[in-house]
Amino acid sequence: MQTVNVVKIGGNIIDEPADLNRFLKDFASLHGPKILIHGGGKLATRMAETLGIPQQMVDGRRITDAATLRVVTMVYAGSVNKEIVALLQAAGCNAMGLSGADGGLILSHKRMHPDIDYGYVGDVDRVNTILLKSLLSVTDTLVIAPVTHDGNGQLLNCNADTIAQEVAQALTAVYQVQLIYCYEKEGVLGDVADEHSVIPLLRRSLFNELTASGAIHSGMLPKLQNAFTGLDAGIRNIRIGKAAQLIQLINGTSGTIITHEP
Amino acid sequence: MQTVNVVKIGGNIIDEPADLNRFLKDFASLHGPKILIHGGGKLATRMAETLGIPQQMVDGRRITDAATLRVVTMVYAGSVNKEIVALLQAAGCNAMGLSGADGGLILSHKRMHPDIDYGYVGDVDRVNTILLKSLLSVTDTLVIAPVTHDGNGQLLNCNADTIAQEVAQALTAVYQVQLIYCYEKEGVLGDVADEHSVIPLLRRSLFNELTASGAIHSGMLPKLQNAFTGLDAGIRNIRIGKAAQLIQLINGTSGTIITHEP
Repeated sequence: MQTVNVVKIGGNIIDEPADLNRFLKDFASLHGPKILIHGGGKLATRMAETLGIPQQMVDGRRITDAATLRVVTMVYAGSVNKEIVALLQAAGCNAMGLSGADGGLILSHKRMHPDIDYGYVGDVDRVNTILLKSLLSVTDTLVIAPVTHDGNGQLLNCNADTIAQEVAQALTAVYQVQLIYCYEKEGVLGDVADEHSVIPLLRRSLFNELTASGAIHSGMLPKLQNAFTGLDAGIRNIRIGKAAQLIQLINGTSGTIITHEP
Repeated sequence: MQTVNVVKIGGNIIDEPADLNRFLKDFASLHGPKILIHGGGKLATRMAETLGIPQQMVDGRRITDAATLRVVTMVYAGSVNKEIVALLQAAGCNAMGLSGADGGLILSHKRMHPDIDYGYVGDVDRVNTILLKSLLSVTDTLVIAPVTHDGNGQLLNCNADTIAQEVAQALTAVYQVQLIYCYEKEGVLGDVADEHSVIPLLRRSLFNELTASGAIHSGMLPKLQNAFTGLDAGIRNIRIGKAAQLIQLINGTSGTIITHEP
């Protein structure tokens, strides 16, 4: 099976035009089919503030009322998605931008929670693998904004990390899948206080040890639990590191590789 | 050759949720491959005003500075495009939304004018017919926002009427093309003062007569000149009428059909 790279970038890099452009040049140079998943949360927050729409976050999730949903749709699926596509095109990469509503790519349902009304936040039901494969045969680069739909005409705001994982898992049926999470640290740290303590290779056994010893905790814990769920679902490996080191992440000379037991 | 319908809707209908929803249900029911081209000018103007970005129109064209380009991209390619896609999906139509940047669909260049600086306004160089045909084999409905790119990373704002015509002309290589312009009147009027004076069938000979007699003038004149240029370029026929009467427009029981001499 052919290898596909699914790369997720966060709001920090999207917010810095020079960094974003450098990253996109690296991304454009990757061989084979590839998918970029982006958020744009900082820009959305700023746009909402300018428009006088109060923003509320609960556990890092944006409470998405109707006005905020429109902002998120405008920023993620509109300006951020199309600016990335235009820059990739300029870098010789024939990218096509999509939201989860397009072609019914990602179906989700409105999140129901006993205590918190998240508003128009979606939890993913399914990703259309056949559509992804068809589109990757038309053009080898897709750029996906984390706005989905419920099939009944309602757009829903999703978490970009989750979309990346769901898309990667869906693709395991037809590709060897590498999932790359770009974030602000060099990789998974053995010691949170030490930036140089990147764990180059992380398997379930080591993960269990580090969790038991308390070395891995708080924010990184659910991220890694999701990663191992992804491996169980058939993802070949997951890489975590800095967007500025995408090429090294792919080469395996930077960041953390999360993979199956030997 | 198979027939494709290329339908252009204007800002008036996009601005009225109930009318838009009714129109989209009609559009969803059309058989065969179809493309919807939309603007969203009124929403963009309102968004720009809310954001405190002054808007300037010259001859009906929006002077598009960098801030306005971002607004236009957010509104056209973001909220309007994705809301339309979600509503079409709900109506059982597997629509996919695109801008002209996606997949390099529409290449344009920044408009150069001796006296007026239009800013980031694009004039179309070429439409990627092969991509359109490939996408229409993946899903039979495309929704296109009139934001294009120059291939060097710059998004450009285009006129939606022009995009509709360029897309229709490009498709004549592989389809029988019907181009439908939905606007605020019932069709081309023989007497501008009389709403009931719709000309059902307009050929070049009658057009020449009506232009010579002064019955067709001002705003409608360049629209119709473009229509006849489209016919010369191979479009089978062009229909002009109300969005609320889309089905009748397609049936030929409403609006004006502009077609070749018998």
